Amino acid sequence: MFDPAPILSGERRALARLLTRVENSAPEAEAALAALFPHTGRAHIIGVTGAPGTGKSSLVNELAKAFRQSGNTVAIVAVDPTSPFTGGAILGDRIRMRDLSGDPGVFIRSMASRGMLGGLARTTADVVKVLDAAGFAIILIETVGAGQAEVEIARMAQTTLVVEAPGLGDEVQGIKAGILEIADVLVVNKADRPGAEAALRALRASLDLAPRAARSSLAAHHHLSSPDKRAVDESQAWTPPILLTVATEGKGIPDVIEALRRHRAFLHDTGDGRQRERERLRQELELRLRETLLANLLARLQTGAMDGMVERLLAREIDPANAVKQLLIG
Amino acid sequence: MFDPAPILSGERRALARLLTRVENSAPEAEAALAALFPHTGRAHIIGVTGAPGTGKSSLVNELAKAFRQSGNTVAIVAVDPTSPFTGGAILGDRIRMRDLSGDPGVFIRSMASRGMLGGLARTTADVVKVLDAAGFAIILIETVGAGQAEVEIARMAQTTLVVEAPGLGDEVQGIKAGILEIADVLVVNKADRPGAEAALRALRASLDLAPRAARSSLAAHHHLSSPDKRAVDESQAWTPPILLTVATEGKGIPDVIEALRRHRAFLHDTGDGRQRERERLRQELELRLRETLLANLLARLQTGAMDGMVERLLAREIDPANAVKQLLIG
Repeated sequence: MFDPAPILSGERRALARLLTRVENSAPEAEAALAALFPHTGRAHIIGVTGAPGTGKSSLVNELAKAFRQSGNTVAIVAVDPTSPFTGGAILGDRIRMRDLSGDPGVFIRSMASRGMLGGLARTTADVVKVLDAAGFAIILIETVGAGQAEVEIARMAQTTLVVEAPGLGDEVQGIKAGILEIADVLVVNKADRPGAEAALRALRASLDLAPRAARSSLAAHHHLSSPDKRAVDESQAWTPPILLTVATEGKGIPDVIEALRRHRAFLHDTGDGRQRERERLRQELELRLRETLLANLLARLQTGAMDGMVERLLAREIDPANAVKQLLIG
Repeated sequence: MFDPAPILSGERRALARLLTRVENSAPEAEAALAALFPHTGRAHIIGVTGAPGTGKSSLVNELAKAFRQSGNTVAIVAVDPTSPFTGGAILGDRIRMRDLSGDPGVFIRSMASRGMLGGLARTTADVVKVLDAAGFAIILIETVGAGQAEVEIARMAQTTLVVEAPGLGDEVQGIKAGILEIADVLVVNKADRPGAEAALRALRASLDLAPRAARSSLAAHHHLSSPDKRAVDESQAWTPPILLTVATEGKGIPDVIEALRRHRAFLHDTGDGRQRERERLRQELELRLRETLLANLLARLQTGAMDGMVERLLAREIDPANAVKQLLIG
C-alpha cells in the first residue's frame, strides 16, 4: 500500500525513489499517482523551450534563484529528447548543481528519452504531477529544441517561455517558428551580443504574423458558452511580451519573473487556465482509454492472432482497415 | 466505389486528388487505401533527414535527378513538421520545381504539419502507400530536423539517409546524436566548406560509440528463431557509410546512389527488410486498433459521460486511472 505522507511533506529521498519508479513505469507508480492526484493543481507549471545554444539552462537557473529569493520552492525537470550522446544535459546539470545544490527548497530532476520514444511526454506529465503534489510552488520544465515532443511537453505547462538568442543563423532561427505560437513569454537571451535588437524585431514581426492558432482554437473548441469563456473578450487577450536577458550576468531576470507572474494571474482571471487544464485532462483520459482498450483486446485475442494478422498484412492478403475489423469481430 | 486503375497507371491528376483526400482524412480515402494496399511493397522508400542548413533539399534534388538518369521513376514527399511561417518549404519547392518539373517520371508532394500535430506520421505513411501503389520505383521522404516526429517518419523508410554539414556550430551538431542511430547512410554535405574533415571524424567517432540500439533491438524483438533472422549474423551487419557531397555542384552523388542501392540489397539478402516491414505493419495495426477501440467506446458511452468525467478530474474528485476504470465499466 502506498503511503503518500512522505511525498506530501516533500521528503527528498522518498520523492527521488518515487520519480525513478514513475520513469521506469514500475507497477507501484500507478497506485502512487492515483493517491497523489487529489493533491495536484497548485503549482505554477512553466515550460521553458528553445534551440540549443540559446542559453536556456542558464536562464532556468537564474529564474530558479530569483523564485527562491522571493520565498517560492522550485522544482526543475530537465528533459532531453535527444540521446545521451550529446553530453549537453550532463554539462548543464553540472553548472546547475554548483549554483543550486544544497538548497532544500530546490529539487532537480533530469530525464532523457533514451529507449522511451513516444512515452516521454506521458512520463514527464507524471513526474510533474508528483512534484506538484509534493508542494513545489514553481515547476520549471526545460526541454531542448522545437520538435513535436517538445511542443507536447510544453503543452502540459500553464505558461510557456520560449528562449531565443542572436547569431544562431537564419535557418536555425527558422525552426523557432513552430514554437512561437505556443509562447506566452518570449525571451531573447545573450542580449549583449550583436544582433539582439534584430532578433527582437524579427520576433515582433513573427508574432504579428502568427495568429496564435493553437491557443485560440483551444478556446474555441469547448464550452464556448460557459461563463468562463464569456469572460474572455478581445480586450483581455494575452500578448506575449518579448524580453531581453543576459542570463549569465543575471540581467533582465526580474522582468521575466514579473511576466511569468502576470501570465499566471491572466490565466486565473480569465478562466483560460482552467480551460487549458480541462483540455489537458481530456487528452490524458483519451490516451489512457486507448492504451487500456488495446491491452484488454490483446489479452482477449487468441494466442498468435496478432502475429498471424501481421503475416497476412506482410503478404498483402489483407489491408490494415480490414485487419482491424476482423480482429475486433474475432 | 473507388476505381484504383487511374492510380495504378500513375495518372497524375487522379493521384494528386487522392493525396489531397488522404491528407484531409476524407472518408473516401479509407476505401482507396484498402484497395491500393495489395499493390504496395515494391518501391524503395528512402528517408532523408538532417538539421536545417545542411542542404538537404538540394541533395534530395540531385538524388532524384541521378535516379531518373538511370531510368527509375521518383516520388518526393517533403514533410515540414514546423509551421508554414518558416518559408523554408516554399523556397525549397521553388528550386525543386525549376530542376525537376516537366519530367513525367517525377512526382513531388509537400506536406506541412499545421493543424495535424501528432497525425503527420500517419498521413505521411498513407501518402507513401499511395505513391508506392502508383508504381514509383523510388520514394524520397524529406523531413526537417531531428525531433520525435522526424524519427517516426524516418522509421517508415527502408533506408534512412542522415545529412550533416560542417560549420553549423557545436551545439547544433549535438542534436544529430538522436538520429545517428537510425542512419543507414550518412552524408556530410557542403564538403567544400572548412570543417568537413572534422565533421567526418566526429561522425565516425559518434558511430563507433552508438550501438545502433534502435535497429538491433528491433531485430532482437520478434521471431528471433525464424529462418529470416537466423540468416543474419555479425559478419553481415550493416555499417553505415559516411560520404562527402557538394550537392549544389552534383559532387559525390553517384557514391550516395550506390550506397542506397547496396543498402537495399542488404535488406533483401539478410531478410532485415522483411523484418522491419513486419514491425512497421504491427505498429500500424496497433495504432489503428487503439483509435478504433476508442471511437467505439465514445460512441457507446452516454451523452456527456466523457465531459462529466473530465469535470470530475478537474475538481480532483477522481484520478485518471480510476476514471478509466469507471468509463470502461459504465
